[in-house]
Amino acid sequence: MDELKQLSAQMLSALDEEMRAVLKMGERTDSFYRMLHYHMGWVDADFAPVTIYSGKRIRPLLIMLTCHAAGGDWRQAVPAAAAVEMLHNFSLIHDDIEDHGDKRRGRLTLWKIWGMEQAINSGDALFALSHLAMNRLMERGVGAETAVTALRRFDETCVALTNGQYHDMDFETRNTVSVTEYVAMITGKTAVLLSHSAELGGMIAGANAETIAHYANFGLNLGLAFQIQDDILGIWGNEALTGKSAATDISTKKKTLPVLYGLSQSKPLQTLYQSAVDDAFVGRAIEFLDEVEARQRAERETAVYSQKAIAHLTAAAPTGDGKTALFDLTNTLLTRQK
Amino acid sequence: MDELKQLSAQMLSALDEEMRAVLKMGERTDSFYRMLHYHMGWVDADFAPVTIYSGKRIRPLLIMLTCHAAGGDWRQAVPAAAAVEMLHNFSLIHDDIEDHGDKRRGRLTLWKIWGMEQAINSGDALFALSHLAMNRLMERGVGAETAVTALRRFDETCVALTNGQYHDMDFETRNTVSVTEYVAMITGKTAVLLSHSAELGGMIAGANAETIAHYANFGLNLGLAFQIQDDILGIWGNEALTGKSAATDISTKKKTLPVLYGLSQSKPLQTLYQSAVDDAFVGRAIEFLDEVEARQRAERETAVYSQKAIAHLTAAAPTGDGKTALFDLTNTLLTRQK
Repeated sequence: MDELKQLSAQMLSALDEEMRAVLKMGERTDSFYRMLHYHMGWVDADFAPVTIYSGKRIRPLLIMLTCHAAGGDWRQAVPAAAAVEMLHNFSLIHDDIEDHGDKRRGRLTLWKIWGMEQAINSGDALFALSHLAMNRLMERGVGAETAVTALRRFDETCVALTNGQYHDMDFETRNTVSVTEYVAMITGKTAVLLSHSAELGGMIAGANAETIAHYANFGLNLGLAFQIQDDILGIWGNEALTGKSAATDISTKKKTLPVLYGLSQSKPLQTLYQSAVDDAFVGRAIEFLDEVEARQRAERETAVYSQKAIAHLTAAAPTGDGKTALFDLTNTLLTRQK
Repeated sequence: MDELKQLSAQMLSALDEEMRAVLKMGERTDSFYRMLHYHMGWVDADFAPVTIYSGKRIRPLLIMLTCHAAGGDWRQAVPAAAAVEMLHNFSLIHDDIEDHGDKRRGRLTLWKIWGMEQAINSGDALFALSHLAMNRLMERGVGAETAVTALRRFDETCVALTNGQYHDMDFETRNTVSVTEYVAMITGKTAVLLSHSAELGGMIAGANAETIAHYANFGLNLGLAFQIQDDILGIWGNEALTGKSAATDISTKKKTLPVLYGLSQSKPLQTLYQSAVDDAFVGRAIEFLDEVEARQRAERETAVYSQKAIAHLTAAAPTGDGKTALFDLTNTLLTRQK
């Protein structure tokens, strides 16, 4: 794990510096920028500097590691890494409004402090700024044609993300959702951005089309495995490790993969999910899910996507310490308990 | 006006075709795209095709006319025109949520029909799609470096737009706003996008930096004159022509330029604006505004910006029927009664 640790430390430091530059952190700015600094975890609600855990940074790490492993200079990929991390953060600002979420990373969400109206607008600003981050690729010597292609793929990914979010919200209003529809939804909501991240690294390294496609498919399958694992942890995870109650995904009747399996196989679960949630709800739901082996089926899906991810990563033929770090990152993500 | 009419007809037809292609109108799509078709005025709330007045299209016209008048092929500018019109429409979707607006162009706003959550997400999708529209410049033979620069300026403009919207919402919570602050706000909310439009036309035509700067300043001053004129029409406009009650801007205590002048000059108006709105409110407010010649002062500002706009347009040295059309469009906008 030494390669991953060492490269991560350097890369995440460069990422942080880049994002702070684009978001004018440390410059004299008004609340327009400062609300974004709060969301990024750099200041508190009174705009005093703080240090807050700001998420796993998986996407930007994937970009820089892939670029490095594909024989490129990862420092050229820093603007793309900043762009994707800022895009991810923009989507969190709007998701928190759309999902009526009060807390994010242990703190009040932006809209809870400054109101829904300003939060929509702050998200829009961060969306635009993420594009400006990507536009800095040329300053690092990346060619104009690669920059335009990167920007096109970036926005195609944004469209896929919003399409995934559209379906996620639409599913909440529906009684039945098929497993196929669900996989299409999480492809948009989670997997395309990981796919785009791995793809960007290959593109900026100047890899050939076939290699870039392998990196993209590696990210896509990693994203699908990651999301389904998230669904499993959301029901059977160790609360002490995940930090959130396993009850939440069940008591909110969230349509995750194990639940969709369960609903398609178990009459008692169907009946239960049509009733109101009471104290016995979570226990009984898990009992019915276990009866039809919903967990095992979801785990088999995770294993299939994981194997595909590893196969594509192998076919992309990464090299050096970047190769070691990429495989380590993949294994860490696929065996996580939280 | 023949040049303006003829060129407009061709250009707006090409614009419409381009936007429909980017937004997959006529293809088999789900509600994700169809909600956007509704907002664009192409279908009704049941997704049946309709023809609806879709706004003045000033911004895309400015782009294509400027490109043409600067010696370029305006058809190369169509992707940029589509991008800016789609960006403008994205901002309307989010503004309508932020301003709690029920109606837009005589129809229910997107969020009133499909809910705030889906409307935020639809706006985000249109924002991403507007970038994809711009990215099509290269398909029309525009060079990659020009395309990257266009995209950078496009996103810098988006940041300025959201900054203007931030200040507009912030002003509503404040008792005093200076005229300087107000002009800075409308620069962001209105003028930068007109400036960017005129600039894009020059850039795509391959004009030199000085000419592009003149076009940008032409658009900027035109935008400022346009917005202040809008403020004047919002109070003293002919209701029969503007289609909205003059009372609205006053009875909502909107901080427009004539009102800010009035508040800085008239003690009685200050006192009135601290009281609740009753039946006599609008009449008395206009009386106090007239006493300090708030309308005349605002009109003088409009005249100053108009003259600057004309001066920069002249200095940009446009040619041919594009020149005639640009001056006609400018005069039409600056002498409008609605």
